[in-house]
Amino acid sequence: MRTNSVNVVRIPTNGPGDVSGLLSLIQQGKIDPRSIVAILGKTEGNGGVNDFTREYAVSALSAALAPYVDLPSQRVEQRIAFVMSGGTEGVLSPHLTVFTRDDVSDRGSEVISGKRLSIGMAHTRDFLPEEIGRDAQIRETAKAVAAAMAQAAIVDPQDVHFVQIKCPLLTSDRIEAAMARGNETATNSAYGSMAYSRGASALGVAVALGEIEGEIEDKDVLRRFDLFSSVASTSAGIELMHNVVIVLGNSASSAAPFAIGHAVMRDAIDSAAVIDALKSVGLHTEHDSKPSTAARELVNIFAKAEAAPSGCIRGFRHVMLEDTDISSTRHARAAVGGLIGGLSGTGAVYVSGGAEHQGPSGGGPVAVIARLSDDQSD
Amino acid sequence: MRTNSVNVVRIPTNGPGDVSGLLSLIQQGKIDPRSIVAILGKTEGNGGVNDFTREYAVSALSAALAPYVDLPSQRVEQRIAFVMSGGTEGVLSPHLTVFTRDDVSDRGSEVISGKRLSIGMAHTRDFLPEEIGRDAQIRETAKAVAAAMAQAAIVDPQDVHFVQIKCPLLTSDRIEAAMARGNETATNSAYGSMAYSRGASALGVAVALGEIEGEIEDKDVLRRFDLFSSVASTSAGIELMHNVVIVLGNSASSAAPFAIGHAVMRDAIDSAAVIDALKSVGLHTEHDSKPSTAARELVNIFAKAEAAPSGCIRGFRHVMLEDTDISSTRHARAAVGGLIGGLSGTGAVYVSGGAEHQGPSGGGPVAVIARLSDDQSD
Amino acid sequence: MRTNSVNVVRIPTNGPGDVSGLLSLIQQGKIDPRSIVAILGKTEGNGGVNDFTREYAVSALSAALAPYVDLPSQRVEQRIAFVMSGGTEGVLSPHLTVFTRDDVSDRGSEVISGKRLSIGMAHTRDFLPEEIGRDAQIRETAKAVAAAMAQAAIVDPQDVHFVQIKCPLLTSDRIEAAMARGNETATNSAYGSMAYSRGASALGVAVALGEIEGEIEDKDVLRRFDLFSSVASTSAGIELMHNVVIVLGNSASSAAPFAIGHAVMRDAIDSAAVIDALKSVGLHTEHDSKPSTAARELVNIFAKAEAAPSGCIRGFRHVMLEDTDISSTRHARAAVGGLIGGLSGTGAVYVSGGAEHQGPSGGGPVAVIARLSDDQSD
Amino acid sequence: MRTNSVNVVRIPTNGPGDVSGLLSLIQQGKIDPRSIVAILGKTEGNGGVNDFTREYAVSALSAALAPYVDLPSQRVEQRIAFVMSGGTEGVLSPHLTVFTRDDVSDRGSEVISGKRLSIGMAHTRDFLPEEIGRDAQIRETAKAVAAAMAQAAIVDPQDVHFVQIKCPLLTSDRIEAAMARGNETATNSAYGSMAYSRGASALGVAVALGEIEGEIEDKDVLRRFDLFSSVASTSAGIELMHNVVIVLGNSASSAAPFAIGHAVMRDAIDSAAVIDALKSVGLHTEHDSKPSTAARELVNIFAKAEAAPSGCIRGFRHVMLEDTDISSTRHARAAVGGLIGGLSGTGAVYVSGGAEHQGPSGGGPVAVIARLSDDQSD
Repeated sequence: MRTNSVNVVRIPTNGPGDVSGLLSLIQQGKIDPRSIVAILGKTEGNGGVNDFTREYAVSALSAALAPYVDLPSQRVEQRIAFVMSGGTEGVLSPHLTVFTRDDVSDRGSEVISGKRLSIGMAHTRDFLPEEIGRDAQIRETAKAVAAAMAQAAIVDPQDVHFVQIKCPLLTSDRIEAAMARGNETATNSAYGSMAYSRGASALGVAVALGEIEGEIEDKDVLRRFDLFSSVASTSAGIELMHNVVIVLGNSASSAAPFAIGHAVMRDAIDSAAVIDALKSVGLHTEHDSKPSTAARELVNIFAKAEAAPSGCIRGFRHVMLEDTDISSTRHARAAVGGLIGGLSGTGAVYVSGGAEHQGPSGGGPVAVIARLSDDQSD
Repeated sequence: MRTNSVNVVRIPTNGPGDVSGLLSLIQQGKIDPRSIVAILGKTEGNGGVNDFTREYAVSALSAALAPYVDLPSQRVEQRIAFVMSGGTEGVLSPHLTVFTRDDVSDRGSEVISGKRLSIGMAHTRDFLPEEIGRDAQIRETAKAVAAAMAQAAIVDPQDVHFVQIKCPLLTSDRIEAAMARGNETATNSAYGSMAYSRGASALGVAVALGEIEGEIEDKDVLRRFDLFSSVASTSAGIELMHNVVIVLGNSASSAAPFAIGHAVMRDAIDSAAVIDALKSVGLHTEHDSKPSTAARELVNIFAKAEAAPSGCIRGFRHVMLEDTDISSTRHARAAVGGLIGGLSGTGAVYVSGGAEHQGPSGGGPVAVIARLSDDQSD
Repeated sequence: MRTNSVNVVRIPTNGPGDVSGLLSLIQQGKIDPRSIVAILGKTEGNGGVNDFTREYAVSALSAALAPYVDLPSQRVEQRIAFVMSGGTEGVLSPHLTVFTRDDVSDRGSEVISGKRLSIGMAHTRDFLPEEIGRDAQIRETAKAVAAAMAQAAIVDPQDVHFVQIKCPLLTSDRIEAAMARGNETATNSAYGSMAYSRGASALGVAVALGEIEGEIEDKDVLRRFDLFSSVASTSAGIELMHNVVIVLGNSASSAAPFAIGHAVMRDAIDSAAVIDALKSVGLHTEHDSKPSTAARELVNIFAKAEAAPSGCIRGFRHVMLEDTDISSTRHARAAVGGLIGGLSGTGAVYVSGGAEHQGPSGGGPVAVIARLSDDQSD
Repeated sequence: MRTNSVNVVRIPTNGPGDVSGLLSLIQQGKIDPRSIVAILGKTEGNGGVNDFTREYAVSALSAALAPYVDLPSQRVEQRIAFVMSGGTEGVLSPHLTVFTRDDVSDRGSEVISGKRLSIGMAHTRDFLPEEIGRDAQIRETAKAVAAAMAQAAIVDPQDVHFVQIKCPLLTSDRIEAAMARGNETATNSAYGSMAYSRGASALGVAVALGEIEGEIEDKDVLRRFDLFSSVASTSAGIELMHNVVIVLGNSASSAAPFAIGHAVMRDAIDSAAVIDALKSVGLHTEHDSKPSTAARELVNIFAKAEAAPSGCIRGFRHVMLEDTDISSTRHARAAVGGLIGGLSGTGAVYVSGGAEHQGPSGGGPVAVIARLSDDQSD
């Protein structure tokens, strides 16, 4: 018996404050605003500490959706998870991906075969600045992942294909507040704290899904890159102090006409992994001779990118970590965005930077959502 | 009868001033310094007006090669063409590609089948600042291309697969010098002049190879992007006032164990074109099920990248042209470098930015040099 | 008889979306929201084409003030002029300057001596993309300046000390729209169009105030830098297609406890001009041995900065125009902000970049508003 | 009895590889190349990890001076100290300052009154990557400062006005080398290591000059900013693994027609300190009503700049530390360069970024060298 369904819509934007595409779909009845549970977006800022396009987008979305959900603008975020990832370098194109979830009656759903896309969400408590990038953030995140899986009716960790987390970062103010309490933060650098927060959050996913055995210590964060989650994608933003966890996977309880799959890029030029991820949901690259399965259609790709901490990719030196003009996250998003854009035929994909403990060192997870053909979904 | 042979060696570098790899190969007898005709390099600067890594690399190479060619350091550049393209964004890796050319006796070369890699060079006179980006630069470049083809013993324009040009740019000083003569330059922006110079040089190639019919006017430069060369690659640098032209193609007179081919990327995500270019010299992508021909081996890929002037790639907006923090050439190199790096399995490829009139608008040429297996080359 | 009064308040912000300081002053009764006529702000973006902190700040201010002025959020901007200048490089500090204007009864104002701060506003019609940077923008701006002077009750152009203009820029879309109409825009570069729009707007001020004699032609814009206004400050933003004009000067009709004065920096290191501007309203630099007049107090400084187009400052080369990593406007704001911050003792000053035709080439206007002591203002 | 003399010449450059000004002065007999002991330069790179303009300048200077000092190019640096500081943001202008030293006979020098400019140099041993930013670097630097003072014939620490140090930084390779030895470096960030190296080197100066009492521990570096030297200026570069120490001060043994003085900027807008430093050698700011002493003439100003780690300057927030697009050192140099340029009337001053433990937190030392008038120097 199918008990819920999910809808996923990708909407291009003309700027971080552009909500016209979303409102148009709402007005056309194609999106029910009361069913929206999460919106993942790529915005065109620098993706760094001072990327205000993320909070601007959230502010614009909140104001636009407030009347539909009967909440004041500033409380919309408590109901809908907004995850804005800054940085659309190279061929990447700013866009939103809107996820809705509905309860469905049993009728008709018995003919659906296989597991289908499901979504679940949870969040941690607020962290103290000195907890960011450390054990507390890892443990609380793991708890939230378990809660989100339960909500998505996903039992088997193997059915989880993407866990998006929004996590906090440190600012001068927050670092000072910790100091005033006599505590040291994991780093004194605002930019550097984004890596710590992303890393600890990803380790939390790995713990929840059983991808890591044994204990993780504070000092393993950003050091032991052999510890990682193959499905975690974490994004740091200045606008919150807790982690928001969104689990995407396939569930026997879902009646959605979508499926999700993933692969793990072992480095930033791992084209085989991207192709594997496409194939895992029945899609093929455009230059592939074989036709893609029936009428399956790409909805979006979700990937993480990072500059290999070793300074090398397959034996050749890269300069991303030594560039004082462009942050390494921007370099990495541009490159991986170029590869995924080329293989999928579109730059409107969600490639996010900073893949610490998200996939192997220098690599990262790549997940694909496909819309199934009508035959398959009825 | 084969009359010349060419050798091509790719050498990674540890920095713009690093000549140790080259010197080591010379000392091992693998490169004869007196046979070097051209060195194309990717250096790790910003690729813009103030990218001094290009002239630093040329200065270091000149000083290193001077004793071998019995010339004072500052005159080495008159004998060997150095083309340094700045910008190794994303997965791109700094390296040099050294081309040597030798006369060969007839012995053994009669068993070689097909056309083989050949190289020819020429240069224009010095330009006045006010000639850059205009008719004079187009015409003089076309003449130099013809001269370089003759030197390479290439008769059919179809056998030309890559024409690398090094061309000048404007600086405040040069713009003022023109003004002092009562002349206006094509642009008052130093950065902007790089595009004008690259564009006019590429149009010169198109004229020489018969890719364009009819007259080109000054106002067509950077406007009529339907006029382009499919094999031109032009790079602007502050260190010269003339164009240096290097023609790469296949010639029946060459006994070299290498072949070159090319394709044209119609946009920055044209993976099919990259694969076609690889296939044109018998290579396949690494995730391809079919094995690559015999023991053919990739030597290097030469490609141009640019941000689509339309602001869109396959219907989706890109932000490269509206980013005040990162120049569009850096964005484009990073993205196309990611795609080519992914398909070829290495970031040590020559991807150069600014593809005005080099391939269609938003796209660019991609050429591949492969080493033939021993069987094929004897 | 004094007929109006102006209040000026400087408010630090914690980010582009921060309206808490303004709301707090409104709640304390220190600012009457219905009297607000203009808000000038410095926001912490890059000040370039893709600086979304400006529109984010406007969006936040509109949402915050909407309930006080009984207008829907998106219409607040029609009543209050918001001018956000992006870029707080170096010591510059993000802040807002709020201007209110009230009608005053005659009572008490007869004892006020001298002219006092007054403000007037007007705006032009929307421009077509192809009008930006050209004659139409110059003429329409001149008309709007005259209208704003009348509103401020300023008769003598000598009493105008600062004219802030917010003007549009070109985007890829707008350039294409012009092309589709068969018209060419002044430039094809989005970033470059900011200079054209600022320049033409400044020339409009010069025309209105009689600072230029004779005709100005389209080709003079960004060429004849001997034509300039000594009081114009123009700022380009993506969010509008018309010019908004704010005239600040001293008027015999004003009962405000403030005065404004200005000087003209002849280059970016003209400390004497900054000191003159401070002295013009009775203020002195902090290291000055003489005490400042009575209890006069600095409210804010408004200045324009630019990289000398000649490439030199007092005979020494600067690199601002040849830097592909940092735009010249960011360089110039940082440097002039450092000088003004050092002489005034605070980084919370309004230094805006891009001073084309605003002051002499390489220089720019610098205006100072001082609060008069109680004795002086009663 | 005067035993040595020093000459100081400031030479503008047209690029990092430009040695024409220096060679011209040598050919005119105004600089004796065999007397050159140190060259301090400002080059126009980003001042960060990948600023190759520093090593390019050193390479060009070495090649140019080699024939004059009878050394192969690569050994010139062992005889002459080259300190290239990258980053000429804003009004700063690329230039070299050449220091020569000669033994002088006693004749005539007895009529010289007061202490005069003297220079001394020393260097430490090479450091291991894991020693950078830690105790070993502090102690070895202190020893080298004492040795350099002795060479300069300066006895009283109060006579030391500027200690320029060139120190190493970490790269991915160096960090890995330490890891391979089982040791951790002070930081894993190449960019971050520049701060550690500068900080420890400055603390070494403070120890040598008695500016700090008691022990310094590894954990104080970049933490206890109350510990600092008032005369240290340290610059990190990729091209060396040891510290080079140059002491500038006034000595009774010097017969040079120059004097040096200094003041300490307490923050980045401390104009009073800049004026004090100018006054300390008899110079005044150009807008000062009092004429400067006799014919004293500014030779150069040497200052350090940094973004206040507190995030505030005199109560107002700055954004330098939270900008992912422009590094804080570039922001700080631009701002302080603007102030010093404005007060001294020239942008050709040596303002270097990263003032950790060099002056108080957020501030830095500012030293001035003046040429004395003929009357004074005979």
